[in-house]
Amino acid sequence: MDLAAHATKATAFRALHQGSRILLLPNAWDVSSACIFEKAGVSAIATTSAGVAFTFGYPDGQKISRHEMLAVVSRIAAKVNLPVTADVEAGYGNRPEDTALTAEGVIKAGAVGMNLEDSTGDPQHPLADLSLQLEKILAVREMAQRMGVPLVLNARTDVYLAQVGAPERRYDEMVRRLAAFRDAGADCLFAPGVRDSKVIQQLVGDLKHPINILAGPGSPSVPELQKLGVARVSLGSSPMRATLGLVRRIAQEVLGTGTYQTLQDAPSHAEVNHLMAGKD
Amino acid sequence: MDLAAHATKATAFRALHQGSRILLLPNAWDVSSACIFEKAGVSAIATTSAGVAFTFGYPDGQKISRHEMLAVVSRIAAKVNLPVTADVEAGYGNRPEDTALTAEGVIKAGAVGMNLEDSTGDPQHPLADLSLQLEKILAVREMAQRMGVPLVLNARTDVYLAQVGAPERRYDEMVRRLAAFRDAGADCLFAPGVRDSKVIQQLVGDLKHPINILAGPGSPSVPELQKLGVARVSLGSSPMRATLGLVRRIAQEVLGTGTYQTLQDAPSHAEVNHLMAGKD
Repeated sequence: MDLAAHATKATAFRALHQGSRILLLPNAWDVSSACIFEKAGVSAIATTSAGVAFTFGYPDGQKISRHEMLAVVSRIAAKVNLPVTADVEAGYGNRPEDTALTAEGVIKAGAVGMNLEDSTGDPQHPLADLSLQLEKILAVREMAQRMGVPLVLNARTDVYLAQVGAPERRYDEMVRRLAAFRDAGADCLFAPGVRDSKVIQQLVGDLKHPINILAGPGSPSVPELQKLGVARVSLGSSPMRATLGLVRRIAQEVLGTGTYQTLQDAPSHAEVNHLMAGKD
Repeated sequence: MDLAAHATKATAFRALHQGSRILLLPNAWDVSSACIFEKAGVSAIATTSAGVAFTFGYPDGQKISRHEMLAVVSRIAAKVNLPVTADVEAGYGNRPEDTALTAEGVIKAGAVGMNLEDSTGDPQHPLADLSLQLEKILAVREMAQRMGVPLVLNARTDVYLAQVGAPERRYDEMVRRLAAFRDAGADCLFAPGVRDSKVIQQLVGDLKHPINILAGPGSPSVPELQKLGVARVSLGSSPMRATLGLVRRIAQEVLGTGTYQTLQDAPSHAEVNHLMAGKD
């Protein structure tokens, strides 16, 4: 692989976090969804670990292997021209060495960015100790440096998403963690579960660093998020889950009335074929 | 693998082609779509080769490898309880030995049925010679016999779908091919591209064998197909393509108004997680 071109792409992707326009990343889960997003005009492709896991039949939360996840990232990155950033959950393993291996795999898969979350999957201890998480972030930075690709690290805390601790203490805990991630070298700070405009605005002001907000029904619109100073907005697994909602409606219709209304708004076989052949 | 249980499942799947109710197969392209269809109450799961190919970023038409295709079939068959029938295109290779290898792979992947089409992908010679196609069908039958699993063979001709030859001669050519497939041991005869009720009725009367019709917008409804004597109806890649249509609308909305209406009708993360964990 051409590491110099890869490094240039990573640098260009990082710059998208500092522009005047918010970086919109509607997350893909397979090559076809990535191709549709690319053709629609997004600036970069993010993956959704939950969406990818579901396509394999796994529940979310590191049930899928690092290898399976990176194989999908690799196929997407090989197909699209846009920069790709990979959702690799908590790095597939508890040790910083595991995270380093994952970061190496992300770069080798052709991606220029990765998410790293602090969820453990353990209900008794839902978030990794901050010191361990910082070691993981440093391990990513070191691996990226060693490989010569300035991987864009989106460091995530699940304080809000997993509703950890007393509600009145969550904001401070979130900021404590995200500030530490920032100081350890994270390029962007991801706070899924934060939806309230006032909290978002406060977070942007308190951290003075690019912030990623997870949006969806009930969230401020993308232009509103831009006004609040958010650098990056992603949609998580909601586009993939919306397609599952459509699959369910298709099944209900063909099993019910036996008609095909829910199949009307589909690109033709020829159109998708052309898109996949790169002719479109 | 338990070949006796597998054989029993294949026999039960074959019986679904001879019941008083039409067998409805809305084709899946990954584990999550298969799980949604299963939960909605279908009797069996078929795969769509085009849909699977698209998720990998390939155009339709045997660009995907046998190995990649069967890996998806295997994951689906391992996850759902229903019988699974695999769309394996023209059998991945021109020789009957290739088709036999594919049939072996289909059985090892846990499926109890397979499609075999006569398209070649060569515009100069779009359909395989009938004698070769019959050898391929015999190769499938022999492999199934050798493995002790009475694989349900859905033999397909693309005379109509690929619009081969003069329009006024297509019906006779289709019947000639399908009758030969039937006599060589095919369990069901698949005529994609046939949508007209009168042609369907004539085909059912002329072949006196289970017929598979590919349905979608513009086709007779499922109850109408049942009245016409059709044994099996499938939807091909249209459900998968409908999801790509939704992905495109999602992209257009978030890039346009920056709102999330197209994401409204999605099952929740928790709901999909439960479905994948087999708890739902």
